[in-house]
Amino acid sequence: MAQNIYDTSDFFSEYSKLPRSMRGLDGAPEWPTLRMLVGDIRDKRVLDLATGFGWVARWAVQEGDARSVHAIDISENMLKRAREMTAAQDIVEGKITYQRGNLEDLTLSEGEYDLVYCSLAFHYLPTDKLRRLLTEIYKSLSSGGKLVFSVEHPVMTAPSDAQWKWDNGQVFWPLNQYWKEGLRITDWMTPGVRKYHRTIDTYLTLLIEAGLILTAFKEAWEGLDLETKLEETGEGHRPYFLLVSAKKP
Amino acid sequence: MAQNIYDTSDFFSEYSKLPRSMRGLDGAPEWPTLRMLVGDIRDKRVLDLATGFGWVARWAVQEGDARSVHAIDISENMLKRAREMTAAQDIVEGKITYQRGNLEDLTLSEGEYDLVYCSLAFHYLPTDKLRRLLTEIYKSLSSGGKLVFSVEHPVMTAPSDAQWKWDNGQVFWPLNQYWKEGLRITDWMTPGVRKYHRTIDTYLTLLIEAGLILTAFKEAWEGLDLETKLEETGEGHRPYFLLVSAKKP
Repeated sequence: MAQNIYDTSDFFSEYSKLPRSMRGLDGAPEWPTLRMLVGDIRDKRVLDLATGFGWVARWAVQEGDARSVHAIDISENMLKRAREMTAAQDIVEGKITYQRGNLEDLTLSEGEYDLVYCSLAFHYLPTDKLRRLLTEIYKSLSSGGKLVFSVEHPVMTAPSDAQWKWDNGQVFWPLNQYWKEGLRITDWMTPGVRKYHRTIDTYLTLLIEAGLILTAFKEAWEGLDLETKLEETGEGHRPYFLLVSAKKP
Repeated sequence: MAQNIYDTSDFFSEYSKLPRSMRGLDGAPEWPTLRMLVGDIRDKRVLDLATGFGWVARWAVQEGDARSVHAIDISENMLKRAREMTAAQDIVEGKITYQRGNLEDLTLSEGEYDLVYCSLAFHYLPTDKLRRLLTEIYKSLSSGGKLVFSVEHPVMTAPSDAQWKWDNGQVFWPLNQYWKEGLRITDWMTPGVRKYHRTIDTYLTLLIEAGLILTAFKEAWEGLDLETKLEETGEGHRPYFLLVSAKKP
């Protein structure tokens, strides 16, 4: 059974207060880098997986001039808000279609999209489900079509005690159980959020096995403050997200 | 000025005692995985960069049935030993050519090789030199030709204090300064060995920018003991080598 934390009222309420929920793409520091990976989508057909409040879906038709966006999310709460925000804007009827769907058992049609986009959701899927989804995504892409996605970096998801440590006046990230792939239970706004740790090896091997060609691999977004925060919060000391693009040959 | 630790007598003497020096490929636990990435090289033209004692060069003609191997190393000591071992074996004259050369300023001819192989040497090169070398490698490969290489994993090379730590009964690897690319001075058999830390982002971006297509990305070799050593030495807790293959389209 797929996790749907976004439809629990505590989580939804907390999630709605995040900068990226309140301010949209301007509140997501990795967005400019993802946008660069997305590239030119004029007149393209876009699939936005785990669309959330639909910020990227609306950006794609408004700024990107995409022909159409199909936007999928597991959460009724999120889709309701996404539809409301879309209705309130000057978006041509039918350019965005929202659908409730579960990435774990999604079935896509052949050659239907030129871009598949998925922000920060793949790490909620166990590996067998992600493998299946990537096969569906490959099938759904046109020749030359692109997958762009972000996930929490494996170095972030691995540790048994995921918090900065200090030793001899130096800060570091306590990496361990990197090879122990699978479920990690964490507290993120609510207790008991389920994520899946996977190695970079596994992420890239899954892409290659699906038939996709890696075209970009970023471990930081442009402008991530790698220097000044080094000794304060440790932010610069370890990768945080993976930002990836791959294309269908 | 390129580092050539292998021609300092202390280092050479210590290096010669390593399992991989004494026993060749049987003493290199990552070899079976690299061999899998190398694949079928029957009648292929091979370039072996940083050949060392020439174990892979000899394997390529003896087991792999390669047409020819050009083997390059910076160290006179290593090449002398490699030539002696090659002369003592039943290898057809001229199948292996050894050459002294520096990866930092190597120039290669167009389409000359079907496989370029480089074990554990790229991390001795600063990024601008590696970028240049990858451009030369790309040029030297035939269409469909392959680059296979290993390097120390960036998670290994990053830390300011690269040794296992313990906290609350748990072992972990003290990852920090991941974003601080560049020189790392370490003690490895002799003091003051110079290596260059680079992120995975940088390694993969360099490959992509060189025009190569990633075909395999391994963070562990087959059979690495990821489980039983977990709590003893920490071995299973962090990646150790990167084993990569990429092809020229």
